[in-house]
Amino acid sequence: MGTEKKILVINPNTNAEMTRTIAAAAQSCADPRTKVDVWTNAAGPLSIEGFFDEVLSTPSLLEILVREEANYDAFVIACFSAHPAVTAGKEVIQKPVIGIFESSCLLSCLLGSKFSIVTTSARWEPLLEEGVRQIGLESRCAGVLSSGLAVLDLEEKSLEEVEAMLLSAGERAVERGAEVICLGCAGMAGLSEKLEERLHLPVVDPIASTVKLAEALIYQNLSTSKIGAYRSVEPRGTVGLSPTLADVYRG
Amino acid sequence: MGTEKKILVINPNTNAEMTRTIAAAAQSCADPRTKVDVWTNAAGPLSIEGFFDEVLSTPSLLEILVREEANYDAFVIACFSAHPAVTAGKEVIQKPVIGIFESSCLLSCLLGSKFSIVTTSARWEPLLEEGVRQIGLESRCAGVLSSGLAVLDLEEKSLEEVEAMLLSAGERAVERGAEVICLGCAGMAGLSEKLEERLHLPVVDPIASTVKLAEALIYQNLSTSKIGAYRSVEPRGTVGLSPTLADVYRG
Amino acid sequence: MGTEKKILVINPNTNAEMTRTIAAAAQSCADPRTKVDVWTNAAGPLSIEGFFDEVLSTPSLLEILVREEANYDAFVIACFSAHPAVTAGKEVIQKPVIGIFESSCLLSCLLGSKFSIVTTSARWEPLLEEGVRQIGLESRCAGVLSSGLAVLDLEEKSLEEVEAMLLSAGERAVERGAEVICLGCAGMAGLSEKLEERLHLPVVDPIASTVKLAEALIYQNLSTSKIGAYRSVEPRGTVGLSPTLADVYRG
Amino acid sequence: MGTEKKILVINPNTNAEMTRTIAAAAQSCADPRTKVDVWTNAAGPLSIEGFFDEVLSTPSLLEILVREEANYDAFVIACFSAHPAVTAGKEVIQKPVIGIFESSCLLSCLLGSKFSIVTTSARWEPLLEEGVRQIGLESRCAGVLSSGLAVLDLEEKSLEEVEAMLLSAGERAVERGAEVICLGCAGMAGLSEKLEERLHLPVVDPIASTVKLAEALIYQNLSTSKIGAYRSVEPRGTVGLSPTLADVYRG
Amino acid sequence: MGTEKKILVINPNTNAEMTRTIAAAAQSCADPRTKVDVWTNAAGPLSIEGFFDEVLSTPSLLEILVREEANYDAFVIACFSAHPAVTAGKEVIQKPVIGIFESSCLLSCLLGSKFSIVTTSARWEPLLEEGVRQIGLESRCAGVLSSGLAVLDLEEKSLEEVEAMLLSAGERAVERGAEVICLGCAGMAGLSEKLEERLHLPVVDPIASTVKLAEALIYQNLSTSKIGAYRSVEPRGTVGLSPTLADVYRG
Amino acid sequence: MGTEKKILVINPNTNAEMTRTIAAAAQSCADPRTKVDVWTNAAGPLSIEGFFDEVLSTPSLLEILVREEANYDAFVIACFSAHPAVTAGKEVIQKPVIGIFESSCLLSCLLGSKFSIVTTSARWEPLLEEGVRQIGLESRCAGVLSSGLAVLDLEEKSLEEVEAMLLSAGERAVERGAEVICLGCAGMAGLSEKLEERLHLPVVDPIASTVKLAEALIYQNLSTSKIGAYRSVEPRGTVGLSPTLADVYRG
Repeated sequence: MGTEKKILVINPNTNAEMTRTIAAAAQSCADPRTKVDVWTNAAGPLSIEGFFDEVLSTPSLLEILVREEANYDAFVIACFSAHPAVTAGKEVIQKPVIGIFESSCLLSCLLGSKFSIVTTSARWEPLLEEGVRQIGLESRCAGVLSSGLAVLDLEEKSLEEVEAMLLSAGERAVERGAEVICLGCAGMAGLSEKLEERLHLPVVDPIASTVKLAEALIYQNLSTSKIGAYRSVEPRGTVGLSPTLADVYRG
Repeated sequence: MGTEKKILVINPNTNAEMTRTIAAAAQSCADPRTKVDVWTNAAGPLSIEGFFDEVLSTPSLLEILVREEANYDAFVIACFSAHPAVTAGKEVIQKPVIGIFESSCLLSCLLGSKFSIVTTSARWEPLLEEGVRQIGLESRCAGVLSSGLAVLDLEEKSLEEVEAMLLSAGERAVERGAEVICLGCAGMAGLSEKLEERLHLPVVDPIASTVKLAEALIYQNLSTSKIGAYRSVEPRGTVGLSPTLADVYRG
Repeated sequence: MGTEKKILVINPNTNAEMTRTIAAAAQSCADPRTKVDVWTNAAGPLSIEGFFDEVLSTPSLLEILVREEANYDAFVIACFSAHPAVTAGKEVIQKPVIGIFESSCLLSCLLGSKFSIVTTSARWEPLLEEGVRQIGLESRCAGVLSSGLAVLDLEEKSLEEVEAMLLSAGERAVERGAEVICLGCAGMAGLSEKLEERLHLPVVDPIASTVKLAEALIYQNLSTSKIGAYRSVEPRGTVGLSPTLADVYRG
Repeated sequence: MGTEKKILVINPNTNAEMTRTIAAAAQSCADPRTKVDVWTNAAGPLSIEGFFDEVLSTPSLLEILVREEANYDAFVIACFSAHPAVTAGKEVIQKPVIGIFESSCLLSCLLGSKFSIVTTSARWEPLLEEGVRQIGLESRCAGVLSSGLAVLDLEEKSLEEVEAMLLSAGERAVERGAEVICLGCAGMAGLSEKLEERLHLPVVDPIASTVKLAEALIYQNLSTSKIGAYRSVEPRGTVGLSPTLADVYRG
Repeated sequence: MGTEKKILVINPNTNAEMTRTIAAAAQSCADPRTKVDVWTNAAGPLSIEGFFDEVLSTPSLLEILVREEANYDAFVIACFSAHPAVTAGKEVIQKPVIGIFESSCLLSCLLGSKFSIVTTSARWEPLLEEGVRQIGLESRCAGVLSSGLAVLDLEEKSLEEVEAMLLSAGERAVERGAEVICLGCAGMAGLSEKLEERLHLPVVDPIASTVKLAEALIYQNLSTSKIGAYRSVEPRGTVGLSPTLADVYRG
Repeated sequence: MGTEKKILVINPNTNAEMTRTIAAAAQSCADPRTKVDVWTNAAGPLSIEGFFDEVLSTPSLLEILVREEANYDAFVIACFSAHPAVTAGKEVIQKPVIGIFESSCLLSCLLGSKFSIVTTSARWEPLLEEGVRQIGLESRCAGVLSSGLAVLDLEEKSLEEVEAMLLSAGERAVERGAEVICLGCAGMAGLSEKLEERLHLPVVDPIASTVKLAEALIYQNLSTSKIGAYRSVEPRGTVGLSPTLADVYRG
C-alpha cells in the first residue's frame, strides 16, 4: 500500500535488552499503515545518565541517521533528555527527527494544566529541569522527580520494587501540583499502567507517545524547518571523522 | 473492528460552509481506523472573532459534548483560540477534549526552534499572544501576525487574494525569526501547501494536526487528568440553564 | 450633584445571600459621591467553582452589561477568577468593566513585595495560578492556597470554623513568603479583619478594593481601550442568541 | 468629619514649578473627604533624570516621611521611577507610601491587555524597563518610549511642541502593541487629555491615578506589610546622619 | 611597573572592624600587579540591613567615588545587595564600579547549574530574591536562605556558632537544589572554607570574587558603558548637596 | 614559584590559524603568574557553525580534558556557543572547565544593563538566543546579531571588510538597546578595539575575558560543583569508545 510509512526508533543506550522494551512500546499503538523498526546504538556507554554519556553516544547515532535517511520517513531518538543527537539530527538530515523528551512533554500538556517528569537518578533533576526550560515548558512543569532508580535498575530490580519507587516519586509530584506524570526514561516504557491506576491520573509513555507524534508529522508530510537553527550543513574540510560523517561535509 | 475510534470535530462558528472546509482537512490524514465526524455549532455568531463571540458560542458546544460523550472517543474544538469551551469541556466530560490552538502550537515546536501564528484580523494578535502565554509557549513563539483577513473573508475572497495576504504575513513572520508557520484559523484548513512552497518552511494545518494529536491520545487510552484544574463538576443547584446542562449539576 | 457616579457590582453566582455579603463590602468604603448597586446573576449555578460554572454564568452577565450600560459608570464582576465575563464585558461595552480578581491582585502589589491568594476549594489553586500568570503577576505572587472551604461553606459553616480554615491557609502562605493576603472569593468579603489581626499583615478584601479601583477609573474618566484586544464587536449574523445579545451583532 | 483623610504628595525634584503642576493633578479627582497637600523636596537636583539624581534626592524625602508620618494618612512619591525613597519609605514608616510609577502601571493594566510608558529622555528607557521588571509587569508592557524631552523641557518648551513630541512617542507605542499609554513623568500631569483624543486610547495620568490608589488603601485602612521586605528599622549605631534620620535608629 | 592597577574596596557599613575582614579577603588572591585599598564609609548606620540603610549609606559612598576616581582603576561596593550606590556609581564616574552581589552571583554561575545565597537576617530573603531578578539570574538561583544571623553577629558571636548557623542554611539550600553557595554578606568574607568542606560544594566568597572580576575588567581596559542606563550626569541646578556632589552637576 | 597556575585554552575548530589568534588574545592580559597554553582540536570540521559541528568536535575535546587534567589548573573551551564539551567536560573532570560563551556573557553584565552578541552567520542567531536562555541571561540580552560573516571569513576576508561587517551588526545592536557588545566568535579575538572606538561602548573579547574568569576561579581554588548536574561519571560498560574515554567508565 502506497501510504505505508516507516519509523526508525533508535536506542542511544548500547543495550539491546532496553531496545526490546522500547520496541514493544513503540509498536503498541501505531497506525496500521506504520512500520516501526528499532535499532540499538553501536557505540557509547551501556546507559545514558548524564552529559558525558550523551555526547559519547552521539556520533554513532548521527551515522545511523545519515545512512538510513533514505529508508525511513521519520526517526525517533529514544533517550529522555535534551540529547545532542536530536538537534544535530534535525540539522543533518531532511526527514523528521524527534526526541522522546520534547515530544512526550508536549503531549503531556494536552492532558492537564501541569505535568511532572518522574525520572531515574537524582542527576537527571537539574538536567531535565534545564531541558524543560530549553523547550520552553517551564510554566507547565510541576517539577522533575527522581525515583532513585539507576537506568540499569529498570532491568535488574524486580517489577514490584521498580513500581514502588516510581509510585513514591509520583506521589511527591502530585503534592507539588502535577496533574499528569510523564515517564522520564526510555527504559520505563510499559510501566505507565500501574502508576495510572494507583495515582488516578494520566501517565504518559514517552516511546509510544513519540511514535504517535512522529506519525502526526509524517502523515501530514511535515518535516524540520531548514531555514533557521536546523539549516543544512555547509561543505567544509574535516579531520579525523568517520567516512560517513566526513561525507556530509563534502556537500 | 474493535479498535475503531471516533472523533467529533466541532466547529464553534455557526457556519456550515466552514464546517465543510474543516471536514476535508480533518479526514485528510487520519488513521484508517479512525472515523471523523464534524458538527456545526447550533448557537452563536457566524464567525468567532473575539472574547464576546467565544463565550456566546460556548453553552451550545458544551451541550454537544455532554450529549455525545458516549458516542465518541475524543472531541476537537475547532476554533483557533484559548476558547473557553476547551477548558470547560475538559472539566465536564471524561473523554479527551482538545482545542486546535493548543495542539497545533505544541506540534509546531517539533519542527523548528520558533514558530509564528499567521491569523486573520488584528484583534487576534493580542488575544493569541495572551493565549500563547497561557499555554506556556511564549519563548517558542516568534509572534502572532495578522493577515488582515476577516474570518468570513476566507470564504468570500478569491483564493489568490487570500493566499497573497497569508504570504505577506508569513514573510513578516520569517523576518521576526519564525522557522515554522502555524495557520491561526480553522477556516484556513487546506491552505498550508501554497504557503509552504513559497516560504520554504513547514506550515502547520491546525485541523489536520489536532486530529492526529487526538489520535495520539486515544490510541494510547489517555484522557484529561481529573485531579486538578479539570476535576469533575460537583452537584449544585442551578437557575435558568438548559435541561442538558442543568442535568450535569444533578450529580 | 453632577459628579455623582454609579457602579453596578454583579454577583455571577445565582445566590442572593452572597450578594448581600457583597453589597455590604462594596458600600463600606466608597466615595460619598458614589452610588453602588448590586445585582444577582439570573442564570447559572448557585456557586462558581470552575471553568464550566464560569462559562455557564456568562451569557446572562453579558445581558446585564448590555442592558445597563447607559445607567452606570462602571461594572464590577464579583467572581474571584479570570472569569470570561470580564474580558467579554470589556469588549462589548464602552464603560469600564473590572473583575475582582485582577483588581485586588494589582492592589495587593502596593502593600508588600509578594502576596498570596487564600481561596476556597483545591481546584482553584491551578485555576488561579494560571490566572495570576494571565494578568502577568506571577513574580509577585507567593502562591495560591486553598483553605479547603467550598464556596457555599462560607454561608453554611460557623464563622469560627471559616476563620480557622482561612487562618491556617494564611499561615501556610506566610511560610511561603507572602507579605500580603488577598482573599480569593467574593463570598469572603468582610472576613479580612480577623485574619489581619492574627497574621499581622494586610489582608485585601476583593470587593471593597475593586469598588475603589473602579472609582479610580471613573473619577478620572478612564475606560477600556478599544483599539486592541477589546475592540467593539463587529456586525455579523447570529443563530439562537437571546434578543439582547443578538442585537449587539446588528451594529 | 471623622473620616477625612490626608495625603501628602512629595515632589522629589527640587522644583517648585513642577510641584504646582503636580498639585493640580493630585487634587483634580480626589474624594471630597480627602485633603491633598504637596511638598517640594528640600535637597537634590532640580530634576530627577537617573540613578544618581534619585539617590541624592532621597535622604531629604525620608526626613519628610519621618517628620510628617503623624500628620498624614498616606504619602505619594511623585517621581516616575523605581525611586529608592519608595522602598525605603515603606520600610521606615507605618503609613502607606506609594510611588507614582508602580501605581500608575498597575492601574494601566485594568484598561487594556498591554500598556506602554511614554517618558522624557532616552536614558529612562533602560531604567524604566528594569523598573517594570522589578514590579513584575514585563509581560503587560509593550515598551518604554522616550519622547526625547528633558524633564525640564516640560516647563520650558511650548505646549504644542511638548504635545507633538508625546504624540509621536505614543504613535510608536501603538505600533508596538500598546493599548494604553501611561505618562512616564510627574511633570506630564495634565497632559493626558490631548493625547487621548489624538490616539483614541486611554492615557493614564500618574499623579491623579496614584492619589486614587492611595485613597483605595486608606479608606480601607490598608498599609504596607511589615513582616517581610519592609520590616521596621532595627536600632543600631549611626555616623553622620541628620538628627531626624539618626533618631530612627534609636528605636 | 606601568601595568600596576589599583582597586578601592569600599565598605558601605560604618564599621571599621568589618573593613578589616574585607581587606583580608580582598587581598587574598589578587594579581601581584594589583594594589587593593579599603575604605570605611563615613556616614550611615553601623550595618546595612535593608532599603533604608542602603540609601542613607549612599551619598557618602558617592562622594568617595567622585573624589577618588582619578586615583584608582576600579571601585568595589562591598555590600551584598542591589545597593543604590552601585548603579549611581556606574553613572557618576567613568571607571568601573561593581557591587559584590552582582559579581559573585555571576561568578557562581560558572560553578554549577544552580546557586543559592546564604545570607544573614530574614529580611534579606525578599530583598535579595528581588535583587537576583533585577540582575536577571532568577532561573539560576535555587533560593536565598537566611541563616538567622544579624550582620553584626558576624563579629560578636563565636566562630563555631556562626559556622553552625551558616551550615544549617547551606544544608537547606542543597535540599532546594543548590550546587553552589554564594556567601551573602560582606562580613562573611573568609568563612567559605569550613562550609565548603562540610557541604562538599564550592562556596563563593563575595569579596575575593569581586576583586578578581574587577581585575578581569581593568586588565582588559573595560569599563561601564556610557550610552544607556549609565550615561554621564548632565549639568543642572541643585539644592542642599555637599560641595563635592553639587560639583558633579556643574558639568 | 608555587603559586603559578596553568590554563589550557582548547580551540574546538580543527584550524591552527584560528588557534594562533586565540593564543594572542588569551595571553594578552593574564596574571603574570599564569601560564596559558593553547591546543587545536584533533578531530572535527575546520570550523564550528552549528549543532552537528559541535557534537562531532566533542569526543576529541573530551579526550584532551581527560588526558591533560593533571597538567592544568583550568580549561577553556574556545567555541562561542552552548558547546556540549563544556557541560560534558564539567562532568568528566574535577578541574574547572569554562566555555567562552557563558563566561563572556556573564562578564558583559557588569558593564551595562543590556548586552548584545555580534556573531558570524545567521544560523547562530537562533542557536545563541537559545544558549542565552540556557544560561539564564535572556533579560539582560538585547539580541544576537549576525554580521553575515562565515567563521572562516574571519581569516580570509580583509580586516577592513570584517570590521565593516561587525560595525554594521554592532550599530543594529545599539538600536535594539545594547549598551555592551560581546564578540560572538573565538575567531574574533583581537577585533574589539576598533569596534569600541567607533561605537563608543565596551566590546568584550570572549577569549581574553574567559582567561580572566578562569583565573578568578583558580586563584580562589574554586571548581565545578560535583553534587548536582556535574556529578562524576559512574562506572559502566561501554562499546566502541576510544581507550581514553572508555577508561573513564572503568571507575
